[in-house]
Amino acid sequence: MEGVFVSDMIEPVRKRAKFSDRVRVFDTTLRDGEQTPGVCFTLDEKLEIARKLDDIGVDVIEAGFPVNSEEEIDTIRMIKGLGLRAKICGLARCVTGDVDACIKADVDRVHIFIATSDVHLKYKLRMDEEHALRQAVAATDYVKAHGLECEFSCEDATRTPLERLVKFYSSVDAHGADINNVPDTVGVMEPEAMQSFISELCISLKKPVSIHCHNDFGMAVANTLAGIKAGASQIHVTVNGLGERAGNASLEQAVTAMEAMYGVKTGIKLNMLKEASKLVERASMIRLTPNYPIVGDNAFAHEAGIHVHGVLAKAESYEPLTPEMVGQKRRIVMGKHTGKHAVSNFIKEKYNMSDEQIAEVVEKVRSHTINKKKITEDDVTTIVESVLGSMPDAERLVKLNEILVVTGDKITPTASVQLMANSARKVAAGVGTGPVDALSKAIQSALGEEIKLLNYKLEAISGGTDSLCTVEVEVEDDDGKTASGMAVGGDIVMASVNAIMESINRIYAKRRRD
Amino acid sequence: MEGVFVSDMIEPVRKRAKFSDRVRVFDTTLRDGEQTPGVCFTLDEKLEIARKLDDIGVDVIEAGFPVNSEEEIDTIRMIKGLGLRAKICGLARCVTGDVDACIKADVDRVHIFIATSDVHLKYKLRMDEEHALRQAVAATDYVKAHGLECEFSCEDATRTPLERLVKFYSSVDAHGADINNVPDTVGVMEPEAMQSFISELCISLKKPVSIHCHNDFGMAVANTLAGIKAGASQIHVTVNGLGERAGNASLEQAVTAMEAMYGVKTGIKLNMLKEASKLVERASMIRLTPNYPIVGDNAFAHEAGIHVHGVLAKAESYEPLTPEMVGQKRRIVMGKHTGKHAVSNFIKEKYNMSDEQIAEVVEKVRSHTINKKKITEDDVTTIVESVLGSMPDAERLVKLNEILVVTGDKITPTASVQLMANSARKVAAGVGTGPVDALSKAIQSALGEEIKLLNYKLEAISGGTDSLCTVEVEVEDDDGKTASGMAVGGDIVMASVNAIMESINRIYAKRRRD
Repeated sequence: MEGVFVSDMIEPVRKRAKFSDRVRVFDTTLRDGEQTPGVCFTLDEKLEIARKLDDIGVDVIEAGFPVNSEEEIDTIRMIKGLGLRAKICGLARCVTGDVDACIKADVDRVHIFIATSDVHLKYKLRMDEEHALRQAVAATDYVKAHGLECEFSCEDATRTPLERLVKFYSSVDAHGADINNVPDTVGVMEPEAMQSFISELCISLKKPVSIHCHNDFGMAVANTLAGIKAGASQIHVTVNGLGERAGNASLEQAVTAMEAMYGVKTGIKLNMLKEASKLVERASMIRLTPNYPIVGDNAFAHEAGIHVHGVLAKAESYEPLTPEMVGQKRRIVMGKHTGKHAVSNFIKEKYNMSDEQIAEVVEKVRSHTINKKKITEDDVTTIVESVLGSMPDAERLVKLNEILVVTGDKITPTASVQLMANSARKVAAGVGTGPVDALSKAIQSALGEEIKLLNYKLEAISGGTDSLCTVEVEVEDDDGKTASGMAVGGDIVMASVNAIMESINRIYAKRRRD
Repeated sequence: MEGVFVSDMIEPVRKRAKFSDRVRVFDTTLRDGEQTPGVCFTLDEKLEIARKLDDIGVDVIEAGFPVNSEEEIDTIRMIKGLGLRAKICGLARCVTGDVDACIKADVDRVHIFIATSDVHLKYKLRMDEEHALRQAVAATDYVKAHGLECEFSCEDATRTPLERLVKFYSSVDAHGADINNVPDTVGVMEPEAMQSFISELCISLKKPVSIHCHNDFGMAVANTLAGIKAGASQIHVTVNGLGERAGNASLEQAVTAMEAMYGVKTGIKLNMLKEASKLVERASMIRLTPNYPIVGDNAFAHEAGIHVHGVLAKAESYEPLTPEMVGQKRRIVMGKHTGKHAVSNFIKEKYNMSDEQIAEVVEKVRSHTINKKKITEDDVTTIVESVLGSMPDAERLVKLNEILVVTGDKITPTASVQLMANSARKVAAGVGTGPVDALSKAIQSALGEEIKLLNYKLEAISGGTDSLCTVEVEVEDDDGKTASGMAVGGDIVMASVNAIMESINRIYAKRRRD
């Protein structure tokens, strides 16, 4: 595969493997992903994620667990109503009510499951094996009687005896189930065992085998790949590896590894992985660590020194594939102890900036190092981006002349602003739950229109109270025009205001262009 | 292993494997980990991390790359000076100057490396194989002539032909090298290939084999385990999986998986993993995603619904091992659409709180939901922790009566405070780089002493300008007493002040107890 520089030692593995002709991608970001503690997608977010999943080429979208609520059913119906190419699936326990909710949600496929391991049968279901089997078969019959595709899972399959699994899967298959999904529900497998296990199932079962891996020991991706080598023809994944506890196998990692290492085709547009990841990061409010594989900020970042020397001589020295292939960019960042001259050189090499912009960055870096024990490469990158991201002064239709904010424990946070909008001077005041909220209200009042703040994101900072912080905002006007802005500074309030002003100016610039 | 609930299907794998009698843990958080773009540890942080690594039981600490700078050499000498049980190692290219720097740094072991793959030899080193081999042997001789342990790495080993690797490793072994480390420098391997590869090396080489895996495709842990099954007797890892690009194999995941799945002993105190992870998280300023395996906040969290029902009936239903085993705690968190009554019930079940405290939480949750489209479980947990974490009012020796903060674009952020300290009324003002900094100065001035802010951490927030934010601070007084405080609120400034006051009160409480 062009642009891929993996080990030649994988070749014999590839030859031995029993790959299915086509591996289908079943994405469960909207179901297992949403079960991540703390994650709750809005309707709009779900629709947007579903559209993006379809765009990147997943085969099946598990859109939710319909029996949860009427709202869940409506949401899934709306996702189905988008008319996507991907099949829409709903989850159901092996009970009529759950399947009915799926039918009401208008899904293409019902994913029914029942636990089969001793511990689940005994303590959770309080049911014997035969009882569970009867329920599984009855649910399969019910799904098929309604003309829907049926995917069946033995929950906690990897802690269930193999003979029992074969019995369950063969029975539902005989009743028309279309695909057998094998969940490693608690992430308790390792790849070699997984490969033998799935191999045996593929031999014993007539219908296709699917695999669903959790990441409790950090091996969800490797286990998924092991399943594929054994002949599984569908993988369950989530964007950014969201999911219960340590999450599910990550779509980005599993798909990229399969394509790059085994040459297995999945139909996924790899170059859209980064944007899908960003979308889910924003909607889930779960920020990836920079060292997250494939789509993380550092996945193709190299620090000054031996690695940068190597990458510049020949990128494959320290890159397993070209970053563009997965929608990423290479980042060459500075190491510690980098002086002013080096900062300037570094910026010149990496960014297309005017001399004034370079001077602005160097000055900001300098003023930052005075107050801080150290400057990280991310700090510099943030500063560069804030300078590069700023609009040329002439294009700014809205300019702040004066701001005053007062807050405290006995008073309502209050702000006043004086600004120039389209050359007219405007003055207004506002109150809010905090100083930034008050300022945001005052600015809107001065502009005489409501500019809705869709998103306000303050990056985690650490260090002293004078640390740099980064604020990103996204705003929307009455006509539905949106724009984003970013600012960085030592003062949280001023950084927030600058980001808001940046985004408002972008809205105004858009209007002028229309 | 007690408290471990992995799949029985791993048993045959365990029996087939050629485990070494004892697997040694070589931690490179301070070397490869510090090469993470954006990470730079201070001297104090390095000493603290080295102590913690020794406490948890690692065998070797790679403390840095001495030739980098005199400062690096001094730091490593000081780590060596701590007199830890773990061996201290320094990295060196196969050149005399690099080894000299290691000798100067007083290390026990020198880890020399030279690249051996075609791409590295040709483009980076611009050197032929024979030349590289001569350098490797010469460096080995030099290290051994100085009576130090010698660990040798063929950089990019996994893209080097096997015969060449055997030639390099055998040659240095014949010259006294003590251990052969095999780096998957660019993370381009998969487990099955890795297992055959390491197996062949273990058969061909007389000295022990070590393995060093990168996580570019998300398989560093699985590859490390594959190496162990093939007979490798040392693993290179980093805390939190820090390292170049997508990072190295994570210590927490690799060690826990090895012990739990294979019963291989590593000597690591698993129950200290969470605190080691927290320490490195703080020092690196790289926050783990909540779904990070083993030590992440969600690794043992369960959301209301089927999973909570299962976990409460029998924990192993949805947990691969008991959380306490790895220094974690189980978290039962609320799902979406949770009403006031459920919040109160949830809190009663989970926390030991007084009725007033419960009422306070319920009220805070209520006032939060009025302004926000949704309340996440993390929000509730944060609120609960802020209420639980607050000191009883009677114990507070310092109380704020009045605060006023003024900031803006044309003025220096200014704050005034009026507070009661030990029943005396104090008033003071301060200026700073932002409103929080100004308040911090004003409080210190009012107290008449410098309370150093060691750490200020504002958790990433997202949503509107009225979102909840969490502030954690750590302070230190003149006598070196430290305390931390946390607060949560919709107003960044007030949350910061509350956290600072909380920590100051803890300092005062400590003094009274002395």
